[in-house]
Amino acid sequence: MTTPLAEEIARIHGTPAVVIDLDKVEANIARLQAACDAAGVANRPHIKTHKSPELARQQIAAGARGITCQKLGEAEIMADGGIDDILISYNLLGEQKLGRLGHLQRRVRVIATADNPVTIAGLPQAAEIAGRDLEVVVECDSGRKRAGVETPGEAVALAKMIAGSKGLSFAGFLMYPPEDGWEATQVFLDTANAGLRDAGLEARIVSTGGSPNIPNIGKLKGATEHRAGTSIFNDRMQIAAGVAGIEDCALTVYATVVSRAGPERGILDSGSKTLTSDSGGLDGHGLILEYPLAKIAKFAEEHGFLDLSGSNERPEVGEIVRIVPNHVCVVVNMVDKLVTVRGDRLVGELPVAARGRLT
Amino acid sequence: MTTPLAEEIARIHGTPAVVIDLDKVEANIARLQAACDAAGVANRPHIKTHKSPELARQQIAAGARGITCQKLGEAEIMADGGIDDILISYNLLGEQKLGRLGHLQRRVRVIATADNPVTIAGLPQAAEIAGRDLEVVVECDSGRKRAGVETPGEAVALAKMIAGSKGLSFAGFLMYPPEDGWEATQVFLDTANAGLRDAGLEARIVSTGGSPNIPNIGKLKGATEHRAGTSIFNDRMQIAAGVAGIEDCALTVYATVVSRAGPERGILDSGSKTLTSDSGGLDGHGLILEYPLAKIAKFAEEHGFLDLSGSNERPEVGEIVRIVPNHVCVVVNMVDKLVTVRGDRLVGELPVAARGRLT
Repeated sequence: MTTPLAEEIARIHGTPAVVIDLDKVEANIARLQAACDAAGVANRPHIKTHKSPELARQQIAAGARGITCQKLGEAEIMADGGIDDILISYNLLGEQKLGRLGHLQRRVRVIATADNPVTIAGLPQAAEIAGRDLEVVVECDSGRKRAGVETPGEAVALAKMIAGSKGLSFAGFLMYPPEDGWEATQVFLDTANAGLRDAGLEARIVSTGGSPNIPNIGKLKGATEHRAGTSIFNDRMQIAAGVAGIEDCALTVYATVVSRAGPERGILDSGSKTLTSDSGGLDGHGLILEYPLAKIAKFAEEHGFLDLSGSNERPEVGEIVRIVPNHVCVVVNMVDKLVTVRGDRLVGELPVAARGRLT
Repeated sequence: MTTPLAEEIARIHGTPAVVIDLDKVEANIARLQAACDAAGVANRPHIKTHKSPELARQQIAAGARGITCQKLGEAEIMADGGIDDILISYNLLGEQKLGRLGHLQRRVRVIATADNPVTIAGLPQAAEIAGRDLEVVVECDSGRKRAGVETPGEAVALAKMIAGSKGLSFAGFLMYPPEDGWEATQVFLDTANAGLRDAGLEARIVSTGGSPNIPNIGKLKGATEHRAGTSIFNDRMQIAAGVAGIEDCALTVYATVVSRAGPERGILDSGSKTLTSDSGGLDGHGLILEYPLAKIAKFAEEHGFLDLSGSNERPEVGEIVRIVPNHVCVVVNMVDKLVTVRGDRLVGELPVAARGRLT
């Protein structure tokens, strides 16, 4: 059941190969932009998923206001690639990063993020290098207990600290509501906004996030921007969340069946060093398009353990299959390039330019 | 509690940084070699852990007979780096790889692996390109149900097929006994060897594997070589297996505490894109040397979620901590370079040259 395209990809690139369908990528970019436009919320896609300046430029061309990065190193690569409006949704700390942040801010608009006084105390170093004010949003916890202050009072206190810091400008709030947490987030935001008004401040940016939240864009009254990453490619988690179908999954891993030592089991040449151990909380590690009832039960580093007991159709040694990963963002992060196709036609390859920019 | 070395590393490289102590690396290399020497078994370390030709050369200089690679692309980089005796412990399939294998075999000794007739049928293509016989070992399952034939009869049948294939030479057996599976493996090997004798064949190589098996090297009568990878760095899994102490762990991830939004929780700037979601079956994702009672409870891509409820000592925002990862091999695979130190002195950096060689 190996397709001619799979044979061609294996012949040129070998397997495993991480492949994106540019037709689907473009459709996914357009769909996110349309959802933001319909809600009257600016689109600021998170590039952690693709790490490609080329795809970021396509997102901007489709109407995105700017982009979101999780790492300073990603932002630097994106600025090199011509992106000029970048939110870094992460506390940046330390002399080395603050110096780099200042140099980045000389070149492009950067919005920094803080959820604590230590971060805020450092950011003026960057602004001084840049020679102009640095915009800073306050990260607010909206229930995920990740980063972000836990109360509106803390958010307002940090907003005041930013506003009172030489070289910093308070820009607004960064939020990441759980899919079922929008009402609580609204209460948080309304309370924080009231506190801002009392202090003579205003949140120009209120940013929400998440691809599973695309149906909820605009639900938070006062939100001005949305950050979605995964939706450019989609994956098994997005399918499970009900926000994408299999046909919307633009990225698949082409893998070869390299062993069939038992009748009910087999081995794929894609293990934890390709598909990663990030299960996204799902059962099994990816959906095999050709054998949807086969289960990728576990991994060694270069082995995907196939449990074929539930599948009457079973692949032979040498067959190439396509896998929709559970979590696409971490898979892209494993490779230096993506192979590009359109439908059943091989196009070329796209560097994952910001991969490995650990800092 | 940030050490001066951590401050220096952060100033030069930023965090997260993946750091190896060369003194410990050298001691670990020597310890593995001594264990092999004591057992009279050749050392053929698995370079999947470090992916560095420089470290492979050090292993050879310490007495290793050759190296083991899991990927053809790794083997190519190692050959470029001067290693001339390479076992690829993985079924290689497909025109593209067989062509590359042949070209590799022109340059260095390569031992290929097969556990099925399809792989064996392809390998003569490589030998023809190389212009000389290709040595092939038969992979045998020794209880892990990964790759490898399940019975001695199948092993002998494949040995005969190899011996009867133009351009191929039967070299022996590849085994990977579970730590408690040595008796069963002995029965398998003895039975297979009897079958070989009847066929007028001989296993010149009998290869065992695994760092947790270092105390068992030589336990399998007839074994000629051992493949250990992880022991060059060690990790929390090796500690849990009782084959390494914390002081033997040569690799640590230096991470900054970037958020402390609640009294009992915090965030590290190392998430699944640095430490990976590979838990190795252990509770928590790494041992924090400065806060051994703190738990890395879960990950987002760039966030390590610290559960501090069990630790009276708690880090501040901005503090840099050192983490012994659960599984070191997959962490090295995330980065393009390792920062090198000796004790509390910064040395330089070492490229992870074979990283990203997916095929």
